[in-house]
Amino acid sequence: MGELSLIRQFRRDPPGHPWLKVGPGQDCAILRWGEGRDLAFKIDQVVEGTHFLLDGPEASSPRRIGWKAMAKACSDIAAAGCWPVAAAVAVNLNRRLDDAWAEELHAGLAACCARFNFALAGGDITTSNGAVTVCVSLLGEGPADGAWLRNGAKPGDWLLVTGELGGSRGGKHLDFIPRLEEARRIRALLSGQKPGAASPEPRVHACIDITDGLARDAGHLCEESRCGVEIDEAALPVSAAANEAAQRDGRGVLAHVLGDGEDFELLLAVEPQAAAALLKDWQEATPLRRVGTVLPEGAGRRLKHADGTVEPLPDVGYEHRTGGSS
Amino acid sequence: MGELSLIRQFRRDPPGHPWLKVGPGQDCAILRWGEGRDLAFKIDQVVEGTHFLLDGPEASSPRRIGWKAMAKACSDIAAAGCWPVAAAVAVNLNRRLDDAWAEELHAGLAACCARFNFALAGGDITTSNGAVTVCVSLLGEGPADGAWLRNGAKPGDWLLVTGELGGSRGGKHLDFIPRLEEARRIRALLSGQKPGAASPEPRVHACIDITDGLARDAGHLCEESRCGVEIDEAALPVSAAANEAAQRDGRGVLAHVLGDGEDFELLLAVEPQAAAALLKDWQEATPLRRVGTVLPEGAGRRLKHADGTVEPLPDVGYEHRTGGSS
Repeated sequence: MGELSLIRQFRRDPPGHPWLKVGPGQDCAILRWGEGRDLAFKIDQVVEGTHFLLDGPEASSPRRIGWKAMAKACSDIAAAGCWPVAAAVAVNLNRRLDDAWAEELHAGLAACCARFNFALAGGDITTSNGAVTVCVSLLGEGPADGAWLRNGAKPGDWLLVTGELGGSRGGKHLDFIPRLEEARRIRALLSGQKPGAASPEPRVHACIDITDGLARDAGHLCEESRCGVEIDEAALPVSAAANEAAQRDGRGVLAHVLGDGEDFELLLAVEPQAAAALLKDWQEATPLRRVGTVLPEGAGRRLKHADGTVEPLPDVGYEHRTGGSS
Repeated sequence: MGELSLIRQFRRDPPGHPWLKVGPGQDCAILRWGEGRDLAFKIDQVVEGTHFLLDGPEASSPRRIGWKAMAKACSDIAAAGCWPVAAAVAVNLNRRLDDAWAEELHAGLAACCARFNFALAGGDITTSNGAVTVCVSLLGEGPADGAWLRNGAKPGDWLLVTGELGGSRGGKHLDFIPRLEEARRIRALLSGQKPGAASPEPRVHACIDITDGLARDAGHLCEESRCGVEIDEAALPVSAAANEAAQRDGRGVLAHVLGDGEDFELLLAVEPQAAAALLKDWQEATPLRRVGTVLPEGAGRRLKHADGTVEPLPDVGYEHRTGGSS
């Protein structure tokens, strides 16, 4: 089980380059590329048995697998406040899959590129007897005023979340829309506020996409930013799928909203005045809501119930189905 | 067996972007990034059972697997005449591998980055029960006078090759040195010729790295450039490993030199006058030799033996060991 060890190795004193501004440990690496715009660089993979299944009642179609692989990498580009420019894809097929399967996989990948107007620039295809893997590398264009990172949240910041949470396993985990347009709109609205104001400071202090569940990913944001957090239960945006899942398994809606994961929504820590104005101006189809507040580190991570009582934020989160059924 | 179908899909009318100069079908994609240098973008993977083994007498150490994964992607960057800037790596581990194994894999990846002074900018790690895959995405800096492609060879060009060929399975396929420094030196020597000369035309007309064997990769160059080729048997640089392999299996040295593959040497088509001057000026430790001539398309692909007789270039080449022993 060398996974955690390998993650540590990647983060510990990696080989660098003068153009590298942000290395391992963020949603994307950020490079300064000559005189051009900053560049976001991301690699991400989906693995049969972990992120999708090819057999059994929960089997996924190749088109949805392709979409998910590409959209999942896009979600990280969105969390960095960037926009995708080009993708390269490495696929390890299994020899029992036929041409039609491969064509549908490609259609899913290409559909996501076409939806957000970026290039499918290259690929590397192999075939083996083992699990199917689809690995996506993305290049994104960085904004002039800097990419969003995970480590800048400040006490007092409002915690905002796009969309609705929970129940992703009901289907959303395969055909979610990465929040690229929402990230761009947030940036546009914030940069439009106070035109000509003196402060050039970014008002999104930190951002992460919710893959492990709100509780764990809020925890990641706190850890990287060295802060605490209070999540407001009454304000949580509950998806219909979370309600359905709760009715089915009796675990309660809150557990699904906090811990199901693979929501691929954005969690942002935004300077309070800017956040209030942003919510007031927000008119998009995708909801944007305040779900809590960033606290000083000593305050810990807590959940405020509707009745005003407070308890530690539960450590619930998505467990990838490693060793799945196929 | 959807592999060929998927490769066709990638090449057929892929989603584009205004910054994309060269898309699928080359060693790297090439993008223009703002006002900065051109950017080479590559994804490449090594898969257990296909590119390396974990069990049996031919099992590879994790350090050599890491080196191979990174060096193989570097070889494509070299073939485009570019230089690596940053890598991102996706690893799918197997749960029977321990921390020490993962650390050695990382050491092999990082050693290649350190050797050529580029960043290990990010990673994505998963664990499954299946085959180990290591997928590398590389960003390279493009030269001011344009990347080398596969499709510009012209009749009359000299075919040059770096290093020696054949017998890679004896060990070189795991610890070869990607020909980045040789590519840079070739570029420097060629741009140093005729200083201030009127012609701004590139003198390397095409380049490819030899992964499938000289015969097949010369064929790829011909196909992309719509030309023929004559390979001169007497001029072929035979590695010691090719001689050893021929003694062992009795298949003859020529078959190994033309077809073993995974040589990771560069095959270049160079304008004749420039090529002659280049060979005269070449003083590097790595040999650079003329092995043939580019011909008009109608001349086909042929092999000239030492006695002057000519036959069609044999269609021998490296078969990846898909479905290998582990």
